Amino acid sequence: MSVTAPQGFEAAGVVAGLKSTGKPDLAVVVNRGPLKVGAAVFTSNRAKANPIIWSQQAIQDGVVEAIVLNSGGANCFTGSFGFQTTHQTAEKAAELLGVSAGDIQVCSTGLIGVGDETFRANVLSGTEKAIAALGSDGGADASLAIMTTDSRPKRVVLERDGWVIGGMAKGAGMLAPGLATMLVVITTDVVLTPQQADEHLRRATRTSFDRLDSDGCMSTNDQVTLLASGASGITPDADAFGDALAAVCLDLAEQLQSDAEGASHDISIQVVHAASEEDAVEVGRSVARNNLFKAAIFGNDPNWGRVLAAIGTTDAAFDPYDVDVWMNGVRVCTQGGPDRPREEVDLTPRATDLVIDLRVGEAEATILTNDLTHDYVHENSAYAS
Amino acid sequence: MSVTAPQGFEAAGVVAGLKSTGKPDLAVVVNRGPLKVGAAVFTSNRAKANPIIWSQQAIQDGVVEAIVLNSGGANCFTGSFGFQTTHQTAEKAAELLGVSAGDIQVCSTGLIGVGDETFRANVLSGTEKAIAALGSDGGADASLAIMTTDSRPKRVVLERDGWVIGGMAKGAGMLAPGLATMLVVITTDVVLTPQQADEHLRRATRTSFDRLDSDGCMSTNDQVTLLASGASGITPDADAFGDALAAVCLDLAEQLQSDAEGASHDISIQVVHAASEEDAVEVGRSVARNNLFKAAIFGNDPNWGRVLAAIGTTDAAFDPYDVDVWMNGVRVCTQGGPDRPREEVDLTPRATDLVIDLRVGEAEATILTNDLTHDYVHENSAYAS
Repeated sequence: MSVTAPQGFEAAGVVAGLKSTGKPDLAVVVNRGPLKVGAAVFTSNRAKANPIIWSQQAIQDGVVEAIVLNSGGANCFTGSFGFQTTHQTAEKAAELLGVSAGDIQVCSTGLIGVGDETFRANVLSGTEKAIAALGSDGGADASLAIMTTDSRPKRVVLERDGWVIGGMAKGAGMLAPGLATMLVVITTDVVLTPQQADEHLRRATRTSFDRLDSDGCMSTNDQVTLLASGASGITPDADAFGDALAAVCLDLAEQLQSDAEGASHDISIQVVHAASEEDAVEVGRSVARNNLFKAAIFGNDPNWGRVLAAIGTTDAAFDPYDVDVWMNGVRVCTQGGPDRPREEVDLTPRATDLVIDLRVGEAEATILTNDLTHDYVHENSAYAS
Repeated sequence: MSVTAPQGFEAAGVVAGLKSTGKPDLAVVVNRGPLKVGAAVFTSNRAKANPIIWSQQAIQDGVVEAIVLNSGGANCFTGSFGFQTTHQTAEKAAELLGVSAGDIQVCSTGLIGVGDETFRANVLSGTEKAIAALGSDGGADASLAIMTTDSRPKRVVLERDGWVIGGMAKGAGMLAPGLATMLVVITTDVVLTPQQADEHLRRATRTSFDRLDSDGCMSTNDQVTLLASGASGITPDADAFGDALAAVCLDLAEQLQSDAEGASHDISIQVVHAASEEDAVEVGRSVARNNLFKAAIFGNDPNWGRVLAAIGTTDAAFDPYDVDVWMNGVRVCTQGGPDRPREEVDLTPRATDLVIDLRVGEAEATILTNDLTHDYVHENSAYAS
């Protein structure tokens, strides 16, 4: 169900001819209201795709009628022709739905530099096809149509007393902060103002998608969009809704992590007793981006020396000679020296827990990442993506 | 010859029993003077090995009589016992050479966390053995004894009118700025003051070792040391000596790059028309650390989209939509859009030239890196290092 689980939404996913495999590659999600509230967060990469440039402008009034998403081409660095393609996509959807083009969000994903006339024609005809196929049970189809190298669709539904949040995501590589390279659509039938939607979404993504750093590479096309229809008529307690939205985002982030390209370990890096949350994130991120550590985990080697070498490159407040490191429950390093024998650490499970105790404060943060594997190199070298 | 090419130096490399392979693993280089000038630059990693902590203090007076280097164990995060090992190594060498322990530099390389009683005993007896074997033709042996995963020794000799610079280096992985994980000893017979030696060394490393970023990982044990004996009696022109030292450093840096673990391409990232040299370095570094770009090069894929996605994460002054990208002489991207077909780019040679034209200023910088390969993952996952 995903995005069509809450009341007030219709969706579709169709074959537009963008993927050479002939698989579904274009999705539309429409908000039937009564509210048409939208909020989004975008990649912080300065190299932004045309759909990002369009959508950032279009969402400023907090009104979103529909969102068009395509896989099979990022429409990024495709010049003014590419921007016109995005614009025409919004106009096509608006015309067919009888709304304003400025209330249409557009998202694209795929290879950078792809966006020629054939691409445009397929996106436009696909948009028409998808809008004709819209249905209140179209969420599953939509989640299939946004997949790129994903091995499976990512969906979530969370039901509360009288209201629902649904979501879908795509993303399997180029997962890094500033959104963790992904397209995400989250829908809900609660009553929200645009400002509330924006605040809730920023808070929820900050501790979920922003903490997923699979390979340190930031995409040009990331967008996480929240749509609220108000169709349940319910205005939930702000904390209750915020918690539910955060849970939905974290669930989708973990689905992205567990499907990351070529990965054989899902690594949770928990940094505790930091002086600040910012420090904890910086320390966790330095480990998540250390190729030597990531390769060691692939080899089931509890190489804590590489953890200390990574965190020593940060500016965070701690003494490298007063740090404890735990791997899968075994304290392998204490106060900057060896502790339990590394043979006691079993790294064969996919789920890998690294705990770094900085012993200076009370703040903490968890960064999600993956190991560096032969398959990662293969998938990112054997063909363009 | 390497470090024994200039007048006034003796060296040796011996088997101390630190490497399980039984290969040479301990080197000593002695300055016989008349000057005993030394300068060094150290890793900027806050996680510093015991020899770094010792050597940083010991070199502050600018006097160095000798340097003891071992492979087969980094003596890093080995507690106060490890620091005492370094101290005892300096004292042992000083006693045998009849000098002060504070004028002995110590360098170690190998696995972090290794530095037990056996390690100490082997280092001390190896130091004795090496000092007994010192000779004015010992440079080659010394360069062999500092190798870790290096496939070949790195040596250089540069002769000028009446004076000479010699050097040796080790390093094949964990190559990143703040010295590019390495041990380097450079010797010269010119007349220098400690302050001149320090200034020349900092200038030369800034545009050579500091610009080598093979895998983004910074070591805990890096040290580049310059020793001057004054034995030629010549005080060369400052610019002439500075240029020669820079050439020696760049030569060794390129030897390190071409022997980087598992690499199949040596990538030169030249950033031109930047607003400042700092910007050029930041932009080049962002590409050198982008796993997706590095994997693409391994796959001979001229994926310029990944270049733009990487540089878009920096704060450097440029417009992502007004950038040109050249690969091996072919302009594949102009003003942020596709230019020549990617099929025109031949990436089969090991030497790979990437030029990024930011079109905003006059500054430039070149960063040296390598591709991300199956062999890199294998070498860094199959066994601890």
